[in-house]
Amino acid sequence: MAATMTTPAAGYQKLSKRMREVSLLSTISCVLEWDQNTYMPAGALAYRADQLAHLGGRSHRLFTAGAVGELLSECEGYGFGPNTAEGANVREWRHHYERAKKLPPSFVVKFERMKALAYEAWREARAQSKFKLFKPHLVKIVNMVRQKADYFGYETSPYDALLEAYEPGARAERITQLLAELRPAIVALLDQVRERSDSAPEGVCQGTVAAQQAFNQRVAEAIGFDFKAGRIDTTTHPFCNTLGAGDCRLTTRYREGDFTESLYSILHEAGHGLYEQGLPPEHFGTPAGAAVSMGIHESQSRLWENHVGRSRAFWEYWHPIACEYFPQLKNVSAEQLYAKVNRVRPSFIRVDADQVTYDLHIMLRFDMEQKLVSRQLEVADIPGYWNEQFQQMTGLKILKDSDGCLQDVHWSFGGIGYFPTYTLGNLNAAQLMQTARKENPALDADLRQGRYQALLTWLRQRVHQEGSRYRSRELMEKVTGESTNIRHHLELLQARIVS
Amino acid sequence: MAATMTTPAAGYQKLSKRMREVSLLSTISCVLEWDQNTYMPAGALAYRADQLAHLGGRSHRLFTAGAVGELLSECEGYGFGPNTAEGANVREWRHHYERAKKLPPSFVVKFERMKALAYEAWREARAQSKFKLFKPHLVKIVNMVRQKADYFGYETSPYDALLEAYEPGARAERITQLLAELRPAIVALLDQVRERSDSAPEGVCQGTVAAQQAFNQRVAEAIGFDFKAGRIDTTTHPFCNTLGAGDCRLTTRYREGDFTESLYSILHEAGHGLYEQGLPPEHFGTPAGAAVSMGIHESQSRLWENHVGRSRAFWEYWHPIACEYFPQLKNVSAEQLYAKVNRVRPSFIRVDADQVTYDLHIMLRFDMEQKLVSRQLEVADIPGYWNEQFQQMTGLKILKDSDGCLQDVHWSFGGIGYFPTYTLGNLNAAQLMQTARKENPALDADLRQGRYQALLTWLRQRVHQEGSRYRSRELMEKVTGESTNIRHHLELLQARIVS
Repeated sequence: MAATMTTPAAGYQKLSKRMREVSLLSTISCVLEWDQNTYMPAGALAYRADQLAHLGGRSHRLFTAGAVGELLSECEGYGFGPNTAEGANVREWRHHYERAKKLPPSFVVKFERMKALAYEAWREARAQSKFKLFKPHLVKIVNMVRQKADYFGYETSPYDALLEAYEPGARAERITQLLAELRPAIVALLDQVRERSDSAPEGVCQGTVAAQQAFNQRVAEAIGFDFKAGRIDTTTHPFCNTLGAGDCRLTTRYREGDFTESLYSILHEAGHGLYEQGLPPEHFGTPAGAAVSMGIHESQSRLWENHVGRSRAFWEYWHPIACEYFPQLKNVSAEQLYAKVNRVRPSFIRVDADQVTYDLHIMLRFDMEQKLVSRQLEVADIPGYWNEQFQQMTGLKILKDSDGCLQDVHWSFGGIGYFPTYTLGNLNAAQLMQTARKENPALDADLRQGRYQALLTWLRQRVHQEGSRYRSRELMEKVTGESTNIRHHLELLQARIVS
Repeated sequence: MAATMTTPAAGYQKLSKRMREVSLLSTISCVLEWDQNTYMPAGALAYRADQLAHLGGRSHRLFTAGAVGELLSECEGYGFGPNTAEGANVREWRHHYERAKKLPPSFVVKFERMKALAYEAWREARAQSKFKLFKPHLVKIVNMVRQKADYFGYETSPYDALLEAYEPGARAERITQLLAELRPAIVALLDQVRERSDSAPEGVCQGTVAAQQAFNQRVAEAIGFDFKAGRIDTTTHPFCNTLGAGDCRLTTRYREGDFTESLYSILHEAGHGLYEQGLPPEHFGTPAGAAVSMGIHESQSRLWENHVGRSRAFWEYWHPIACEYFPQLKNVSAEQLYAKVNRVRPSFIRVDADQVTYDLHIMLRFDMEQKLVSRQLEVADIPGYWNEQFQQMTGLKILKDSDGCLQDVHWSFGGIGYFPTYTLGNLNAAQLMQTARKENPALDADLRQGRYQALLTWLRQRVHQEGSRYRSRELMEKVTGESTNIRHHLELLQARIVS
């Protein structure tokens, strides 16, 4: 019987080959999307949308073919162990197959084309801060996303049908509960925050794009990102995407007024990148070689961005090096930089938000997305609702939509259901870091000396190498002994902010 | 009957749809290849080769399906006029279909994968000037190219079977004859060349990469290249490639010691780009919307590079502007720059060669390629044979293979049969320019004032807009009244070099 495990039967090999072909087509789409985001000239848009629609349609047809269903049934009969690579693959393929089958191929093709066009409209709308340029696209997207939820079906909330794509097994109800616990704790923390007098003064973090690029690259290399299998380019919205085996692309944007914005965005994206680069390569193109969920993915990005990057230890080590790139930093101390990057102050842009107010941004989006999907909110009302809610929450008045509802790329690709995974990522990051610290007593000494290998190795062994063999909830319990909760995250905030 | 022409029958529409799908897959491959050439990290290579092999195989299967043959037969019965878009499409599709069918699908997939891997090996070999790094790849390529020629079949020379891919209808015999006429004329010209004392001195053409990029962009824009539908990036070997409708990518390389190298390479590639951007967009993805042949394509690049770019008129207009980018040019005259860029002096690198010795480079490659294909020469003998022949021809001794047999990218993608189209391009360019001048009496006055619109419009109407409605030989006769010959090219050389 053991032989079946090591030499899977012909049906599994056939299925695996087909699924790797589907994955290969998806990565080709990723190359095209990456190019669209980075270098593609504007005039190429309509045809690029055709190319993406074609690939999306073909990949969907290959994936949902009747033969796949038959092979899945055959493989389910083999009795693969539940957390073996084969067992996890069959389980995940079945899950995604059943979902994908519910979408008509014409819908998939239409959605792919729409996404490509909407992205450009969003980029232009954001650049000009004109919601009306994005609005007609967003109306189509929201309508199609609502239709998608109906196709998928759901038990209590249509939002669950969408969330499933990013956090399999999660439910809006549980997210609501976590956020409800988190909110008063954040508000309480905010009351305790005082402006630190020891923070680095405004202006001291200026830096040319070239200096930022060089410094970011050095930091990303230091934490372990492999540039032989990846690179960094410039986009409107930072992201990390895998374009194939050995090909992980990070992007960021630069503001010469403050190098820490691109730095933390690169620490975030490189955190994603380390996860992608740490997945078992022999399983590339199958769930056993893919990330579990976005809630786990965001735990990796937020861990490197916040637990590592915003620590006192980080600046103790990096301050003298940063002075080589930004000479005026000689006029401030590591402690002042630490204070600066941990300053708590409500602000407009989520990706630049401090750790305390960050989840307020998520709460706003989660609330709006649920209302949009359940038809309690229409696209025309988005700017007004956003601005009103944001002001209630933070006291800040939004004067332009690029600081408000146009800031994020997600809706342009139909990614409704994605945002809550950032908060899950925050919670998971704190839990994982707490366990890492417990299991690696030298961890903090390492971090103070700019040594990241032990932490990365631990993450590789406990999280990355697992691929999708466990579902996210199981993985968190297996590694940290707890399911996702707010406790460790609040401990971090308390320690960083108030002490 | 006329209605059939404007509303083609269902079979034609069906065929057209299939062929546009094949073309769309090819453009997706072009995006992947462009990315491989420009930005892809090294570690991504193996998987990129898989992606390209997959797309190549799929596109070949779609193109050679039995249904295509049946649709072609049906369409051939419609009686489309020979030079209508429909007629030309059916003619060209049939031609390519019959050829493609001769290649086994597994051969196509293998060839695509090999190409992707060989390109990287070539790039590395060239960078290190180590032929042995490229050799094992080149052995495979030459073997597969020989096999390809056998699959295609031929009447007299296996080389014809390969040439056909780049210059349909051309024969090695005719090329041999043209080159045999050209060679003594070039040798005679070389005897008359004396070093010009009025040439710009060494060093005066230095310029930073940033200055070169800005100046090249300005020149490319001035001649009419549309940057909303294209861009310029950096690669080891300059090229022009269309990645989709409205998406024409040029590349070049930079040497800070001499800005004119990248300038002329961009004039060359932008010449290709103007052709691609001038093809009728409504026929994109079909022969009626595609270039006729590489011999015509190279006529466009060489026309802008040499007839426009190396003219006295060019530097009369551009010298003061170039001074903004390269201030030390104030110390020389337009006439000195003109003399510099027309200096005749045998040199190692084809793409930087002067107009007189350029075709000697082609003769060497044409001779070697024929011997390689007909098994009179083996890959191991390439460096020795190249160096010996080159020294005989030019008197120059090659000290490193990057100055010799490793300089060109073509063999790495299996492009044996391509090189002669550069000489055809030179001849066609001179013939077209001669006709353009005759039909546009104000042409030279325009060029002196940096006005390129009339020339571009003429090329658009007489060449670009025709797509592949005529075969190259017919097109040349239709536009210039002569078939391709050496006369006008020699007139140009005579006027430029010796006077």
